Formats: sequence, structure tokens, C-alpha cells
Amino acid sequence: MNSIKIVSKKNVFDGGRFKVKKVELEIKNVKKTHFDVERKPVVCVFPLTDSYEIYLISQYRYFFEKNILECVAGFIDENETSLKAAKRELKEEAGLLASQWELIGKQDLAASVVKGTLFLFLAKDLEEAAQDLKTGEVIKVVKMPLEEAVKKVMSGEINSVETVSGILILDRLRREKKL
Amino acid sequence: MNSIKIVSKKNVFDGGRFKVKKVELEIKNVKKTHFDVERKPVVCVFPLTDSYEIYLISQYRYFFEKNILECVAGFIDENETSLKAAKRELKEEAGLLASQWELIGKQDLAASVVKGTLFLFLAKDLEEAAQDLKTGEVIKVVKMPLEEAVKKVMSGEINSVETVSGILILDRLRREKKL
Repeated sequence: MNSIKIVSKKNVFDGGRFKVKKVELEIKNVKKTHFDVERKPVVCVFPLTDSYEIYLISQYRYFFEKNILECVAGFIDENETSLKAAKRELKEEAGLLASQWELIGKQDLAASVVKGTLFLFLAKDLEEAAQDLKTGEVIKVVKMPLEEAVKKVMSGEINSVETVSGILILDRLRREKKL
Repeated sequence: MNSIKIVSKKNVFDGGRFKVKKVELEIKNVKKTHFDVERKPVVCVFPLTDSYEIYLISQYRYFFEKNILECVAGFIDENETSLKAAKRELKEEAGLLASQWELIGKQDLAASVVKGTLFLFLAKDLEEAAQDLKTGEVIKVVKMPLEEAVKKVMSGEINSVETVSGILILDRLRREKKL
């Protein structure tokens, strides 16, 4: 049962990688105003070797003022498909090429405040090449057994939610013998 | 190795549940300006019965213009601990009281663009009470075996990333016989 109606919606701030929208809602005849963030869609890539090793990356994030161990990820550019973006980011950030791709999840960041879609890809049949880093970007590629990555999730050492989600999906797929 | 320096940071927009900050960075002597979103921290609650049934909620989300099956979640109020917020949200949204609480994850929404911490709680030893809904809020409480929730994650029917993360952590904890 839906008692919420969108009366109006307009952009009030453009942050480049996201927009802020002012949304007027009508909830049971009462008007309410919200500000929402709409972030550009993101791809997350989980490259896995034939012997169940996963590649993650470690980079300095000024948000947290430290190095973060996370999955390869990036925004989908204009006129780019999610798969094309995934291939581009995997090469740029991890220096990897992959010939087998599978979408293992299409998730949403949150159902309120921040709208942002995540496309999670499994990349297999890997080939090591060179990174294409932007100026100032320092990204360390880290390869480890999937089981070790799962342990780092469970201990909280890996704690970016999209990385957690992807690693645990792979863990479950492996247990279901679908990997 | 950190080649990124924060030169300045100031609020440029206040959306209530989030703030937009303008951040001036210096990357290898080159100045760059970013806009970042800082969202208020959120608690996510995963109530589990002794027979491994999980309570989720279904509510209309105008973001997606449909009902979404997700975990109990909400913002941490000013001067409130994450545990107190978790207890409050569990009662408000699901009408449940719990006497056993465990923090099963402290995660970050994303390492760029949106900074937002998620506190994931397992709630056990449950007692059914009444919801405390706000005007216009219509929240349906849905109880199902944890295994069924995991299947809904794997099929993509459950796709909010924090809900995915929490359910798969419980699945793994159960397999490790820690649940």
C-alpha cells in the first residue's frame, strides 16, 4: 500500500559524480520536503583465478585518511555499458584483462537518502597486463585466496560494503559449486 | 604511499540527513576540487529467532517507486549510541524487542563520493511487541528462514547492499557454527 506521492523533484546541487535533488512528497495529505542524493552508477569487479584466488586493490582514501583494501570499482561513463566500464576499470586499476564475465549482482546503495546502483561483476580467465593509472593514483594490486578475503570480511579488515557483498556472494556461489 | 593531501574542506550544502562538502585536494602538486557527501551513520538490524528465522521489512520506497524487502534500518540520532538506535529502530519498524545484541559488522558505504558508516547488528532472544510507526509509514514485517533470505539475495530479489551484506554475514557465521 503506497501512501507516499512525489509532488515535485528538482536538481538543487550538482556535485559532478552526484546530484542533490529536492523532493516534495505528499504523505497522507501532509506535504514534506526531502533532499536526496543521486550518485552515478558504479561497477565493482571481482577477478578470480582458476585456483580461487581473488584480486583486490589497496589505495589511499582521503575520506578515511588511510589505505583501504577493496574491490576494483569505478563510475560508469556516459554512453558506456556497465560491462564496458567493468572491463575498463579492471584494466586501469588492476592491470588485468578477463575473457569471462558474469553479472553476479545488481544492488542499490540504500533505499533512502542516497540512490546509487552497483553492478557487481565476476571476471574470470584472467591475463595480467599493465595498469593505466591517472596522475597521482597509487594502487597496489593484492592477490589472495578467496577464503582469506572472506576471513578479512568476517574480521572487519575488509569493510567497504560493496566489497563485502561481492566477496560473500562469491563465497556462497563457491559453496553452491556454481563458481 | 600517500600522494593525496587535503588542503581545505567546507560545507556547501546541508540536506539534513547528509551534508555536501567541498574538498580541495593536492595530488602531486596539482590542485583538484571534489564534492563529497557525508551521510549520517546508519544502523541495520538483523533479528534472528532460535530456529534461524530472520525478520525483514517490506515498505514502499519512492526512490524506486515500489515496495522493497530490506532489513530494519535507520539513522543514529544525535546523542544516541549505535546500539540504542538499533533497539529503537527494531521496535519502531518491526515491533520487536531483543535481549541479545551483537555487532556483526561496521562497514562503509563507499570509499569515494559518499561517506556513510553502517553498524550491522544481530538481535536475538526476540519478543514480539507493537510497531511505533510515523504518520504515513506502512511497514510490513516479513519472517522467513534465513536460508530463504539467502536465496532471495542470490536471485537478486533482495538487492539493497547493506541487507545483502548482513544476510550473507549471518549465513557465513551459521556455517562457521558461530550463530
